[in-house]
Amino acid sequence: MTDNTHKEAQHLHRLILFSDAVFAIAITLLAIEIHPPEHWHGVADLFGQMQHKLMAYVVSFAVVGIYWVSHRRTYSRLRRADGALDVLNLVMLGLLALLPLATELLWESGSVAAALVYVGLVTSIGLAHAVAWGYAAFFGTLSEPMPALEKIYVLLRVALLPGLMCSLSFVSIITRTPWGWLGMALVVGGLSVVNRLMARKTATSTVQTAEA
Amino acid sequence: MTDNTHKEAQHLHRLILFSDAVFAIAITLLAIEIHPPEHWHGVADLFGQMQHKLMAYVVSFAVVGIYWVSHRRTYSRLRRADGALDVLNLVMLGLLALLPLATELLWESGSVAAALVYVGLVTSIGLAHAVAWGYAAFFGTLSEPMPALEKIYVLLRVALLPGLMCSLSFVSIITRTPWGWLGMALVVGGLSVVNRLMARKTATSTVQTAEA
Amino acid sequence: MTDNTHKEAQHLHRLILFSDAVFAIAITLLAIEIHPPEHWHGVADLFGQMQHKLMAYVVSFAVVGIYWVSHRRTYSRLRRADGALDVLNLVMLGLLALLPLATELLWESGSVAAALVYVGLVTSIGLAHAVAWGYAAFFGTLSEPMPALEKIYVLLRVALLPGLMCSLSFVSIITRTPWGWLGMALVVGGLSVVNRLMARKTATSTVQTAEA
Amino acid sequence: MTDNTHKEAQHLHRLILFSDAVFAIAITLLAIEIHPPEHWHGVADLFGQMQHKLMAYVVSFAVVGIYWVSHRRTYSRLRRADGALDVLNLVMLGLLALLPLATELLWESGSVAAALVYVGLVTSIGLAHAVAWGYAAFFGTLSEPMPALEKIYVLLRVALLPGLMCSLSFVSIITRTPWGWLGMALVVGGLSVVNRLMARKTATSTVQTAEA
Repeated sequence: MTDNTHKEAQHLHRLILFSDAVFAIAITLLAIEIHPPEHWHGVADLFGQMQHKLMAYVVSFAVVGIYWVSHRRTYSRLRRADGALDVLNLVMLGLLALLPLATELLWESGSVAAALVYVGLVTSIGLAHAVAWGYAAFFGTLSEPMPALEKIYVLLRVALLPGLMCSLSFVSIITRTPWGWLGMALVVGGLSVVNRLMARKTATSTVQTAEA
Repeated sequence: MTDNTHKEAQHLHRLILFSDAVFAIAITLLAIEIHPPEHWHGVADLFGQMQHKLMAYVVSFAVVGIYWVSHRRTYSRLRRADGALDVLNLVMLGLLALLPLATELLWESGSVAAALVYVGLVTSIGLAHAVAWGYAAFFGTLSEPMPALEKIYVLLRVALLPGLMCSLSFVSIITRTPWGWLGMALVVGGLSVVNRLMARKTATSTVQTAEA
Repeated sequence: MTDNTHKEAQHLHRLILFSDAVFAIAITLLAIEIHPPEHWHGVADLFGQMQHKLMAYVVSFAVVGIYWVSHRRTYSRLRRADGALDVLNLVMLGLLALLPLATELLWESGSVAAALVYVGLVTSIGLAHAVAWGYAAFFGTLSEPMPALEKIYVLLRVALLPGLMCSLSFVSIITRTPWGWLGMALVVGGLSVVNRLMARKTATSTVQTAEA
Repeated sequence: MTDNTHKEAQHLHRLILFSDAVFAIAITLLAIEIHPPEHWHGVADLFGQMQHKLMAYVVSFAVVGIYWVSHRRTYSRLRRADGALDVLNLVMLGLLALLPLATELLWESGSVAAALVYVGLVTSIGLAHAVAWGYAAFFGTLSEPMPALEKIYVLLRVALLPGLMCSLSFVSIITRTPWGWLGMALVVGGLSVVNRLMARKTATSTVQTAEA
């Protein structure tokens, strides 16, 4: 039994290392297709010509970064892994590895259609991540003990947040209005309040469990 | 002696980490040669033009994913590594690293000859993996104690499964008939039955060993 | 509590592994855009034609190498990680991942403007690293116990050293005078003296603490 | 003191992980510049046209593989790492990361001059690795306790073997004679005899030490 537990923990460990490597490669490859312009005069002109590419790079780097943080957080709450989680995690990574391609699409075309494809991909990664978490927390019993409400809260946060943040920032960039950034500030503020409430609730329920 | 055992476990650990990194890079590089088309009108047209590349990407991602899962499974049953396993594992990785090239061949030509080369490479990776496992389990005594029958079963599964799955899915894609997918369902179903029988048998023999 | 401490140590571990992967990819990608010239006659001509690219490669490899050493050193003094450090570390990695691009700029243009952009990027990476360290040491209380003076010294070294070294080497390369290399020798010599003084001081204060 | 020992072991661990990542990326990038030919008729023609590229790939994959095995072996005999080893190891990795470039040179030109540059790079990697090992074993006292003779033997093997093997295989490929392969067989055979003698000698000296 102990040998099996050890193996399942090893499995989770290797799953995380593999995912980290894919995250690291995807985030570093974002810059590999960016090349300096052939002719440029002075630093200002250089940045002027590269502005779209650099902005797309910053957005995509932020997206992969947010997903890495999100992955680190959710998987730190797992105790073990199984074959189904392998597959679901691979689906998420398979979508993530397409992000350099979507980034190229974004800077080359810069059209609303390209932005839609991009946001669609970002949202799909979030949904795939949420499916993996949902499986791990509800069906595979792979997570540490935690209240069902918290599991659902993590599920919703993982599923919706990245697509929402990405959409809101595009709204602000495309319409050149501050409404998108304002929306993001509201979401971040709201989440920190909910996080605090969840923590208090968990603490209380832990105390109750301990007292019982 | 203990120092040596520790070193051999370290060896296995480093071998696995190195392999994981190669898997992660190969799987992420699959997408790097895909570029968006120069002219496209609307999202439907974009996906229409990129359809072959995306399908080849999905198939190759699945292939590398299956090999990663297979590698993780078989190597989790090893206790230590040696120089010969290093070499055999490198041969397998050397073939795996050619998969982005074979994927490019597949989407550019799309001919039956290209599909043959692709299936041939996938099958070679499986055979190289099987040779590594066979060495580790039968000659190098690197695996944990397990019945010879189970070792052979793992050997056959590792050697034949990926090439078979890949061929069957190509049969369905090329002939546009469901026979390939049906075959895959039969194989997966049959394997899960065999897996269950193997597990029962192992459990019984473990009990018998414990009782003896 | 112990479970939490374990998790925070795990967090730091995963943060370091992820950073290492990004460092490794960035440093290896530096060479990927370098291609041999189409026509060359003999080894001397080959090196003559590739001289600029190889020199830019050597400088960039040294830069990433120095940052890796610096990262390894500072993060070995941390005990745990938190969400803010994730973000600050990602910002640093996001700048670092642009170095292959800046290297290409350097060898293609070779102008003073390109050198300025390059030095600017190297300096930004140093500043981003320093911000991450400053947060970890002063605000996040993530570091092991150490005197405030030492924290500040590490902060300044991390923030200023790479940009300074890079500028000095460029001064020597562009002006073809030894003043830059001389400056570097002075800086390295001065730092080793300061390092020794810091070590003595820390040893003394440790003894005093132990005696108290 | 114990805290320091732990840190130095961690340092070595991170150094090895970083090196493994660079090895893995370099070995996987070898294939990335290989593209299928535009026109080909049948599988035989495809392999005929790609023959030079695939042969260069096989040789380079073997070279990186041998260096990885060599790195794993020598570093498994180290107990800790220091700043100087960081730098010497980085120099070796910096040369290794140029191998995809040298491989491209080899298959594009195919001249004797290209082969010379290639063998020169392979030999330089070996020498850089030997310098790192020599520092670790003789000056930095970073290795586990072992006889000086064995340290020197490892040094010579690490320094000379890869360049020698690479030269011999090129001799056979270029002159189309079996002398190179024959030489390799002699070297491998001779080394296995020496290895056995070394092992016996070490065992004897260990017994003598234990008896004393």
